[in-house]
Amino acid sequence: MSDFQGVYTAPPTPLTADDELNEAVLREIIECHIGAGVEGFWMAGGGGESVLLDDEENHRIAQIVADQAAGRAKVIMHVGTASTRRAAKNAEAAAEAGVDAICCVPPFFYRQPNAAVVEHYREVAAATGLPFFSYNLPQMTQCEITPPLMAKIQDAVPELRGVKHSGPNFADVRAFSHMGLDTFIGLSPQFLPALASGACGVIDGWPGVAPEIWIEIWRAWNDGDFAAAQAAQDRGIELAKLFEIAHFHGVLKAATGYRWGLDCGNPRPPGLPLTPEQDRAVQQHLAKLDLLPAARAAS
Amino acid sequence: MSDFQGVYTAPPTPLTADDELNEAVLREIIECHIGAGVEGFWMAGGGGESVLLDDEENHRIAQIVADQAAGRAKVIMHVGTASTRRAAKNAEAAAEAGVDAICCVPPFFYRQPNAAVVEHYREVAAATGLPFFSYNLPQMTQCEITPPLMAKIQDAVPELRGVKHSGPNFADVRAFSHMGLDTFIGLSPQFLPALASGACGVIDGWPGVAPEIWIEIWRAWNDGDFAAAQAAQDRGIELAKLFEIAHFHGVLKAATGYRWGLDCGNPRPPGLPLTPEQDRAVQQHLAKLDLLPAARAAS
Amino acid sequence: MSDFQGVYTAPPTPLTADDELNEAVLREIIECHIGAGVEGFWMAGGGGESVLLDDEENHRIAQIVADQAAGRAKVIMHVGTASTRRAAKNAEAAAEAGVDAICCVPPFFYRQPNAAVVEHYREVAAATGLPFFSYNLPQMTQCEITPPLMAKIQDAVPELRGVKHSGPNFADVRAFSHMGLDTFIGLSPQFLPALASGACGVIDGWPGVAPEIWIEIWRAWNDGDFAAAQAAQDRGIELAKLFEIAHFHGVLKAATGYRWGLDCGNPRPPGLPLTPEQDRAVQQHLAKLDLLPAARAAS
Amino acid sequence: MSDFQGVYTAPPTPLTADDELNEAVLREIIECHIGAGVEGFWMAGGGGESVLLDDEENHRIAQIVADQAAGRAKVIMHVGTASTRRAAKNAEAAAEAGVDAICCVPPFFYRQPNAAVVEHYREVAAATGLPFFSYNLPQMTQCEITPPLMAKIQDAVPELRGVKHSGPNFADVRAFSHMGLDTFIGLSPQFLPALASGACGVIDGWPGVAPEIWIEIWRAWNDGDFAAAQAAQDRGIELAKLFEIAHFHGVLKAATGYRWGLDCGNPRPPGLPLTPEQDRAVQQHLAKLDLLPAARAAS
Repeated sequence: MSDFQGVYTAPPTPLTADDELNEAVLREIIECHIGAGVEGFWMAGGGGESVLLDDEENHRIAQIVADQAAGRAKVIMHVGTASTRRAAKNAEAAAEAGVDAICCVPPFFYRQPNAAVVEHYREVAAATGLPFFSYNLPQMTQCEITPPLMAKIQDAVPELRGVKHSGPNFADVRAFSHMGLDTFIGLSPQFLPALASGACGVIDGWPGVAPEIWIEIWRAWNDGDFAAAQAAQDRGIELAKLFEIAHFHGVLKAATGYRWGLDCGNPRPPGLPLTPEQDRAVQQHLAKLDLLPAARAAS
Repeated sequence: MSDFQGVYTAPPTPLTADDELNEAVLREIIECHIGAGVEGFWMAGGGGESVLLDDEENHRIAQIVADQAAGRAKVIMHVGTASTRRAAKNAEAAAEAGVDAICCVPPFFYRQPNAAVVEHYREVAAATGLPFFSYNLPQMTQCEITPPLMAKIQDAVPELRGVKHSGPNFADVRAFSHMGLDTFIGLSPQFLPALASGACGVIDGWPGVAPEIWIEIWRAWNDGDFAAAQAAQDRGIELAKLFEIAHFHGVLKAATGYRWGLDCGNPRPPGLPLTPEQDRAVQQHLAKLDLLPAARAAS
Repeated sequence: MSDFQGVYTAPPTPLTADDELNEAVLREIIECHIGAGVEGFWMAGGGGESVLLDDEENHRIAQIVADQAAGRAKVIMHVGTASTRRAAKNAEAAAEAGVDAICCVPPFFYRQPNAAVVEHYREVAAATGLPFFSYNLPQMTQCEITPPLMAKIQDAVPELRGVKHSGPNFADVRAFSHMGLDTFIGLSPQFLPALASGACGVIDGWPGVAPEIWIEIWRAWNDGDFAAAQAAQDRGIELAKLFEIAHFHGVLKAATGYRWGLDCGNPRPPGLPLTPEQDRAVQQHLAKLDLLPAARAAS
Repeated sequence: MSDFQGVYTAPPTPLTADDELNEAVLREIIECHIGAGVEGFWMAGGGGESVLLDDEENHRIAQIVADQAAGRAKVIMHVGTASTRRAAKNAEAAAEAGVDAICCVPPFFYRQPNAAVVEHYREVAAATGLPFFSYNLPQMTQCEITPPLMAKIQDAVPELRGVKHSGPNFADVRAFSHMGLDTFIGLSPQFLPALASGACGVIDGWPGVAPEIWIEIWRAWNDGDFAAAQAAQDRGIELAKLFEIAHFHGVLKAATGYRWGLDCGNPRPPGLPLTPEQDRAVQQHLAKLDLLPAARAAS
């Protein structure tokens, strides 16, 4: 079995009222999630407002989370930037901070030919030698890592260990798995069918709001208890409908805050703060699922 | 007539062999283009590898070009980043450097709702009070500034002066023009039909390789000499087929270099250097159009 | 100069209350448009509910319009169907009816390789030997006829005379024109910039509501009176905003009806009839442009 | 348990050398598939060259297959056409022929508003009263039936029983299943994860080449033998790579022919016949999977 498997969360990047990284809250999120039993973290990725962070913030996040996790859970650190050089420097800083693995989006904004994607990954991965994860997120990067492109990456990047697959082509889960990659599904409402396709785990923001749901899917699947896995997955699908309320950064921060009693702050601009109505909708959705601490205490 | 009109070039960002900004070559490009009669510059935009530049490099480009142009041509400085705060800081630096106007892509990577796009532009524009240009480049930003969205931006951003329209919907040229915006077409092979749709000028990388072609279109159109305008435009269409050789950053650097006898260096990674075959194809294409200095000297 | 140039209309297919072809109204539309001075017709194409018609209806339309036009205007008959065989039979029937030219969409629904597109066109065109027009309408066919594909069609189809370009890439107007094709712009709000790109005319549904607008663009452009052409084009752009009211089949039928005092009936299902509000909006839009017979009589 | 579940094939429409429906071969295909144990048929759908068929051919297929199946397997007959009226007539003919259910694509070519999609389905379904299946095939129809649109269809169409989901959004399998619909996955390489998402069966062309593979997935899944299901699914994924050889109509006809010793003829034009190389590649792919009768006999 791989070192990387099971339920990983992709936490939001908590910010202060001054739009600065909130180290205290970040440490609390890590504690809460480890306490809930997650296997690891995917830091400063899509849910963590990656490309909105300064490089120095990226480095600090690596340091804080590696320090806080302290070997109790894996830390996969996202280092992707538009420029290869900056991504490689972020990777070096993350390795120095003691993370367990590096992850990286392919080149974005400017659409690059496959050879450039491969070379970008080769350089970033080579900067540390740590296990390396590709991040397939074409809806944001406009670069879809198809199985043939992944094969080229695999040939050129000896550090390649796995992938977080958030792309639209579900069949790629099986294809990546067949290639020997640790294949995490990045769309948590599809964890169960992804397991049936050979996925080794899930990485997403929503599991950080209620890790117990996805941990139950993982447990039940491994125990051969499909009915329990299905019931938990349905609950996870329901939770993820939070997505419909507003842009997911604001929703993920609010939901994380309400669930764990923390203040994650607002999205970094251009992300908008939730309106009062949206904020209430997040609370109500969590209440409906019995995921508010007060509701649970009272029940 | 607006202060902003006619032929603007979008030069590449010349780099040294060490991947550092090449100030000397940048100054020479500005001189060459001013000598050729261009009306202004669109710096560090799409053709200038914008999002691959560090903020400090962005500031230096503003300083160098404002200093070199010295009022002989307009300088519109691109300041866009994924984060609103960084874009606003870039804008402040550009204003301090003495540029004539600011331009900015909308939020990219994370797709934001229209309200966030408007607020992003409002904050960046308000940071300086200089004339402000929107940059419609949906093929890279995934945010298409349609006329209805532009109307919202116009309502909220008093500094809004115009737009560089590089989007796919040609009809928007007329729509933006009707809204009172200085509408530059960002696709230089379409300068002539854009003029027939109310555009006030062209901004693109290819005019920087042979400004005389687009200056002739502009002159002929304004003189009512449609046949001459058409002939020049056809020559411009032919030149822009350089695009087919490789990713345009590398091609633009090579073509700029061969035309003006300068060394613009390689694209910044993940951009790939041209292969020898691609480099030769650039030379041959320029030779065919009689745009190599040697060829012209010999002829 | 080509035999095919100037303003062509693409009339709706008038239907009775029983959803049958309304021959009498069809003949009146043809008369009204010829009376207004149009150069020709594009029958049973996109605006004429092409693929919703039975083959027999397609044949009758060819007969009626060829008979009614009687040499006073050109008739280009659309014969495209999903199946090559049926399209070729439609073409034969149209030729027998005496139309001047054939037009045809490429294969649709199933996406076919380029070789199949070329062969489809070759067979349909060869069925009659009449001048043949390609119909570039990728938003419906999902087959974009790019200039390289058009070059292959041109090589294989000796009857190819021209194209109605309704595709999204405006630059193709110049490319097709350079290839020696009679290039009609299919998006009537872009007639003027298309003329500046070498188009030989316009074909669309909206010119059938007010042919005088586009005829004035054509006249003014040919006389070198750009200001008049621009003014007329702006009026045409305004008229075409009818498009925003509802699906264009219903709107085109209603607008054609109100303008010419005819009853074109409802769209064929699955097309929906206009709601009373939509119907009123069509009337009001025409009234605002002073295009209602009553309004004009009263003014 | 629903009457509609398990493995359904979507056979090609066999044609003679004269491009006419080949009744004898069609009957043999039905026999072979029933002999192999399939639960039912999806006739004249995407794999059956649906929109390339004349209505009369559509009616004959319904008659032939209902007659041949004779209650031994379900027959779901595809009746979709661009026009609502023709689709309803096809449905009536199918009902008269004795099929078990009707299926239908939404309106295509012209993009219609949701209200028109719902009304189209309502009329076609009401024409017979038989169980009705929606066909989600947006890559061809350009109309994606999302869960919210499906909910509107469900409200308006009492005959709605299920859906064949061939759309790109895998999560819709669970959503449709939750809505109480018999949800068949239309992408046979994803049968196993679809079962883990609540699908009731699979319908596709490739299972017709080797029904035993998908029947084994279905059996193993229902027996809780996940490893066997996974092994069979992997074999099915391998088989479906036939898709990469050429357009699937030609490949499906050739593969069906080689597997069962039948001559299904060529695709209907504009579909192209396989080249000799493509034909050989089909044979070799089947041989590699030990699916050629001769190979199996010899082994």
